[in-house]
Amino acid sequence: MHTTLSSRSRTVVIGHDQPFCVIGERINPTGRKTFAEELRGGDLSTVTVDALAQVQAGADMLDVNAGIPLVDESELLAGMLRTVAAATDVPICIDSSVIEALEAGLAVYEGKALVNSVTGEDERLEEILPLVARHGAAVIALANDETGIPETAQQRLEIARKIVSAAGDYGIGPEDVVIDPLAMTVGAATDAVTITLETISLIREELGVNMCLGASNVSFGLPRRHQLGSAFLPMAMAAGLTSAIMSCAEEVVNSVRAADLLLGHDEWGARWIAEHRERQAKAAAAS
Amino acid sequence: MHTTLSSRSRTVVIGHDQPFCVIGERINPTGRKTFAEELRGGDLSTVTVDALAQVQAGADMLDVNAGIPLVDESELLAGMLRTVAAATDVPICIDSSVIEALEAGLAVYEGKALVNSVTGEDERLEEILPLVARHGAAVIALANDETGIPETAQQRLEIARKIVSAAGDYGIGPEDVVIDPLAMTVGAATDAVTITLETISLIREELGVNMCLGASNVSFGLPRRHQLGSAFLPMAMAAGLTSAIMSCAEEVVNSVRAADLLLGHDEWGARWIAEHRERQAKAAAAS
Repeated sequence: MHTTLSSRSRTVVIGHDQPFCVIGERINPTGRKTFAEELRGGDLSTVTVDALAQVQAGADMLDVNAGIPLVDESELLAGMLRTVAAATDVPICIDSSVIEALEAGLAVYEGKALVNSVTGEDERLEEILPLVARHGAAVIALANDETGIPETAQQRLEIARKIVSAAGDYGIGPEDVVIDPLAMTVGAATDAVTITLETISLIREELGVNMCLGASNVSFGLPRRHQLGSAFLPMAMAAGLTSAIMSCAEEVVNSVRAADLLLGHDEWGARWIAEHRERQAKAAAAS
Repeated sequence: MHTTLSSRSRTVVIGHDQPFCVIGERINPTGRKTFAEELRGGDLSTVTVDALAQVQAGADMLDVNAGIPLVDESELLAGMLRTVAAATDVPICIDSSVIEALEAGLAVYEGKALVNSVTGEDERLEEILPLVARHGAAVIALANDETGIPETAQQRLEIARKIVSAAGDYGIGPEDVVIDPLAMTVGAATDAVTITLETISLIREELGVNMCLGASNVSFGLPRRHQLGSAFLPMAMAAGLTSAIMSCAEEVVNSVRAADLLLGHDEWGARWIAEHRERQAKAAAAS
C-alpha cells in the first residue's frame, strides 16, 4: 500500500516496499524554550535553519508543530509552513491538536499534506476526518481512544481498524491512513517496546497500512538517546514500520539507511555505497 | 530455554529472557594474514591481546579458531585455548571444521564449552554429536545440509528440527543445541537478511531453542560494516536471536546493549545507565 505525499514540487511515497520515510521532528517548540520564545516574538529564522539542516541530514519530510500556550496557533502554524516551504521542497506533516490550526495549515499548504493527527476518539474522528477528506490529505491516526492508551497490541489493532473504517466513511482510503502504533518510553515500562513491535507486526499483517511513530519517545529520560533510537528503528522497520517522526542525528539516520539496505529496500546497496563515496569525497576535500 | 556455558570460574547463560550473548569473533586467522603467520610461527601473543581487548569491549564469550592450511590444527587450537584461558575467564566457543581439532580442544578445555559447529549433514552429525555428548558440551548447529544452504526459512527450520532430534538421540537436550539460522551477505542477495529474520522467528516459535549466527557475514563486501552490524543485530534480536559471533567494535556492542534495554532484558536500564556513568567518569578522569 502506498501513501503518496507531496509538496509543490516533490513527491514522497511511503510503503512497505519503499525506503523508510524519515520525518524530521525538530520544528516543534515543545521542550525547546528558546525556540518557543523566538516563535512567540514572530522570529521564524530558526524554522528555516532547522528545515535546511534536517533535509541536509537526510529527512524525506518535515513535521511542523506550532503548539505554544497562549499563542494564535493557526496564524503561527500557517507562517511556519510558508517558511518551511520557502526553504525546502520536502512534503510536510502538519502537526497540531487544534482543529482550527490544522484547518489554517491545510489552507496555506501547497501539495498533499500528512495531517498529524487523529485518534480513535469519536469526537476527534468526526472533527478531523472531514477536514482531511476535503483537502485530499492523508492522516496519521494514533491507536488510542477515549479509554486511553491500550496496553495490548490486539486492542491497538482494533482501534486502528475502527479508524481505517471511519476514514472510509468519509471517502479516505486506507492508503491515506497512516497508523501510529504508539511508542512509549522503555524507561517507564520494561515491555513498552515489545508491545509496540507486536502492534506493528499485527497491523502489518491484518491491515497492511502504513505506519508512523514518534521514535524519540522510546528513549525519553534515558542517557545516550541517539544510540537507543539507532537500535529501535531497525527493529521497528523489520516488524513493518514504514515511517517515523524522528531525530535526524547522523547516527540515527545512518541506522535507518542501513536497515533499508538490510531489508532489501536499497537494491545492491546503491544508495548506501553512493553516500559512502560522497562522504569519502568530502573528507578528502576537507583534508 | 537456557544454554549454560562455563569456563573454570565463570558461567554464561544464553536464553530468550537473558541479555544477548556477545561472542567475540576476532581470534580467527581467516582473512588475517599477519595473525596467521604469527600463529604458524608459534607466536600466540596476539591471542592474548585479542582476548583481553574483546572482553574489555564487552564480549561475554570468545570464539577461538585455529584454521590455517598445513598446520597441525589440533595442537595449535589446544595451545590457543590454553592461552585464552590464561588471559581471561570467559567461556569459549571452540571453532573448527576438523573433528580431531575439536577433540583436542575439548580435551584441554576446563568447563562447559560451546562447540562450533555441526551441520545437518548425516556424516557430520554422526561424527560430532557423540563428541559433544561425551564432553557434556553444547553445540552450534548450522541449518544447512548435504543439499547446501536452503533458500527458505521453512527448509532451514526443517534441518534445525532434524538436528535437535538427532542430538536427542545422543542424549544432548535441545537446551544444548544452539541453531545457526545462517546469515548470508546482503551484498549478494537482496533478500538475504529478510530470509534470516524469518528463519529466526520461525525457529523461535516452532523449536524455542537458542540461536547464534556469524553477524559480520551480513555486511561482507560493503562499506561501513559496523553500521550495518549495528542495524542488523537489533532486528535479529527482536526476532529471537539470542547470541552472535560478532565484532566487538564499540558501536556494535552498544547497539546490542541498547537492544537488550529496548527488549526488556536490562530492567530499568540499570546496565545501560551504569555503563553511561562509567564512561562519563572515564572521560572526566581523562580530561
